[in-house]
Amino acid sequence: MTLSTPGPTLGVVGGGQLGRMLAEAAAPLGVEVVVADPTPDAPAAPVARDQVVGDFDDPDAIRELAAQSDYLTFEIELADPDLLESVAEEFDVPVHPDPDTLRTIEDKLVQKRRLRDAGVPVPRFRAVDTVDDVRAAGDELGYPLMLKARTGGYDGRGNVPVESPDEAAGALDAVGGDAMVEEFVDYERELAVMACQGSAEHRSADRSSGRRGGEAASNGTAKPSRGPREEGETDAFPVTETIHREEILRETVSPARADETVRERAREVALDVLDALEGRGVFGVELFQAGESRSDSTHSSGRGSQDADDEILLNEIAPRPHNSGHWTIEGCHTSQFEQHVRAVTGRPLGDTGRRAPTVSTNILGDVEARQDATLRGEKAVFERPRAHLHWYGKREVYRLRKMGHVTLVGEEGADRPYLLDSVRELRDGLTFEG
Amino acid sequence: MTLSTPGPTLGVVGGGQLGRMLAEAAAPLGVEVVVADPTPDAPAAPVARDQVVGDFDDPDAIRELAAQSDYLTFEIELADPDLLESVAEEFDVPVHPDPDTLRTIEDKLVQKRRLRDAGVPVPRFRAVDTVDDVRAAGDELGYPLMLKARTGGYDGRGNVPVESPDEAAGALDAVGGDAMVEEFVDYERELAVMACQGSAEHRSADRSSGRRGGEAASNGTAKPSRGPREEGETDAFPVTETIHREEILRETVSPARADETVRERAREVALDVLDALEGRGVFGVELFQAGESRSDSTHSSGRGSQDADDEILLNEIAPRPHNSGHWTIEGCHTSQFEQHVRAVTGRPLGDTGRRAPTVSTNILGDVEARQDATLRGEKAVFERPRAHLHWYGKREVYRLRKMGHVTLVGEEGADRPYLLDSVRELRDGLTFEG
Repeated sequence: MTLSTPGPTLGVVGGGQLGRMLAEAAAPLGVEVVVADPTPDAPAAPVARDQVVGDFDDPDAIRELAAQSDYLTFEIELADPDLLESVAEEFDVPVHPDPDTLRTIEDKLVQKRRLRDAGVPVPRFRAVDTVDDVRAAGDELGYPLMLKARTGGYDGRGNVPVESPDEAAGALDAVGGDAMVEEFVDYERELAVMACQGSAEHRSADRSSGRRGGEAASNGTAKPSRGPREEGETDAFPVTETIHREEILRETVSPARADETVRERAREVALDVLDALEGRGVFGVELFQAGESRSDSTHSSGRGSQDADDEILLNEIAPRPHNSGHWTIEGCHTSQFEQHVRAVTGRPLGDTGRRAPTVSTNILGDVEARQDATLRGEKAVFERPRAHLHWYGKREVYRLRKMGHVTLVGEEGADRPYLLDSVRELRDGLTFEG
Repeated sequence: MTLSTPGPTLGVVGGGQLGRMLAEAAAPLGVEVVVADPTPDAPAAPVARDQVVGDFDDPDAIRELAAQSDYLTFEIELADPDLLESVAEEFDVPVHPDPDTLRTIEDKLVQKRRLRDAGVPVPRFRAVDTVDDVRAAGDELGYPLMLKARTGGYDGRGNVPVESPDEAAGALDAVGGDAMVEEFVDYERELAVMACQGSAEHRSADRSSGRRGGEAASNGTAKPSRGPREEGETDAFPVTETIHREEILRETVSPARADETVRERAREVALDVLDALEGRGVFGVELFQAGESRSDSTHSSGRGSQDADDEILLNEIAPRPHNSGHWTIEGCHTSQFEQHVRAVTGRPLGDTGRRAPTVSTNILGDVEARQDATLRGEKAVFERPRAHLHWYGKREVYRLRKMGHVTLVGEEGADRPYLLDSVRELRDGLTFEG
């Protein structure tokens, strides 16, 4: 490993806010970023060395990206795994995470099966094609059910609750295409863990506590055999509490307001997820902390019902940095974006330790009609000590579009409800011009 | 103040590492950066929206920069104040700091006179044109003297020590052009303060302790009248200890290992410097903490010899973020680069509080001949928890060229000598390929 100029260059499929924050984090490391995105002057463009304008699955665009890159990654699940595999071979450029991992994750049914088979606790689920399938699942799993599009959904799009057998047909129509159902999890809290898989070159690193190896060995859980694979260093950022409304992330709180045993179990599940997936990078692992009503029931992992084990269920995975981890920019010694750059370019993973209690809130579009984006009220954010504005540079705003976020850092031992109220107040002072 | 997309755009004269770190800091705030620099693909280029290729004093280049910008600033003293004034008027773009401040600072003799007249403690100095002038100054101020080029010097270039009358002629030849001499300050320690002047719009802010107003009123120092001027909010980052060798900054330590009274006095002098200068932005204020031998002598500020007052002497000022403040990126809640962007674009100043004890070291060229830059050994920096590499992306390396820096963050209460040794060890492991 050496550092020279220019580059190394990291090619990123997708140039939204995640690409933008990757580019911000890559620069100090001497890694240059080029993005591919269909929207001219995408959010990442002003801070990236260059943007290739083209669709995520446009062979010409992705070939052009690969030709400029020493490493490839993606910041959006709409990237095409087959295309990534073919350009990786053609241009002899490594892609991380592995395109096969993207293939697994982009189909929620395949994702859930893979994770279940790897021993990760997931809500009970069924593949469904017909109204009868949905009703049969309802008889078995109970109502409400969550009907999910297998592909293409994000930020809650493609998720439709089914309250009774009568709603099955309408819900299937609303989702359209291939679908699955999951039992409705009556969770007490949502959690997220940014888990990271580094290069095998650095497998000797042992800088974090609570590594999976020891825990897996000591709690008697038999791991399915996975055959030979790259075993690089792994780590996870501190467990984050996530707060959603209309299935869109609104705020995060770190440390999560959950018991230490719950946080430890969440970390363990996140590291188990890494074991089930190939390739390096940061993975956003969204979890449910199940409510008390669940603690007696069983779930599809098929394990004995240890209390702590049953409390955490996997919700979804993203094979990339995730909205739930934006707080790490100010809140941890290494941000999730720097960590992803380190991992995919083969550098050692950074220190995931938390620097201070930290909350964040998304800035979402509050207007009904699509319009030019002009934000008012951000002066209060700039004036607030330890508040940090992150603006994504999107030219247009529409309802619930993610336009930016605000992070607020507290003193050690700060009162988290107070921090959360404070950041909400800052956010509520922000409005887009109507 | 509103935030819209695209821009606002900040035009920066100079595209070196300071421009690069300005661009890194501007992006989250939604401020886009364009730089002007004569070197194609300058260090700032990969993270800036655009680079105008042209000399710092090339009217066409600076006009092109101004035409794209909503605000103008500079990251190098080679910017041309007359040209900045004329393009500011032509394109109706504000320039900060005020070009007149640049004019004052770029001539070290004018700088010292202005500061002395404003009551800032400076070493005794004399203008010199001839060998006889130098010898006369030597008779008066004693040897060694420091002979300095009035303009164009940086990183110690243009500074020549004069040990005896015999060396006067040779030293004048070596400096060439207009010169001045200063008494040699037998300092105990060098300190630096990044002082910041914000917009008058935000003058009500009162977030930092130790504001100058109260101190100036209470210590009986009569301030020269300065007439009406913009009085925006001011603040200063925590006092930094700086360690030079061959007159080039090697390491910084924060908090500085000096008594609290000395640090308070350093902060006070830095804020007095702001009072003597026009325009918004971050100013790097380099100071001497005089050794004991000096405490009885007088200096040109003409004040009575209060001990604490006499201990701090101004060395030099930079009208921009400064190498001594790079540690603020990880070490403070706001970095000096974000602070400069906030100040020049009229946003409220950020929180200058320190997050943790922090040291930094420059990565300097260690090769004799100019050559392509390839760094070896950076893996150890990536592996070290809480160490942060900042690579400037310069294509070529030569002896003592600033190629990057490493910051190391400590725990609260960390042992600073240990931190300093640790960061030196990391740096000593870095080499350029010969």
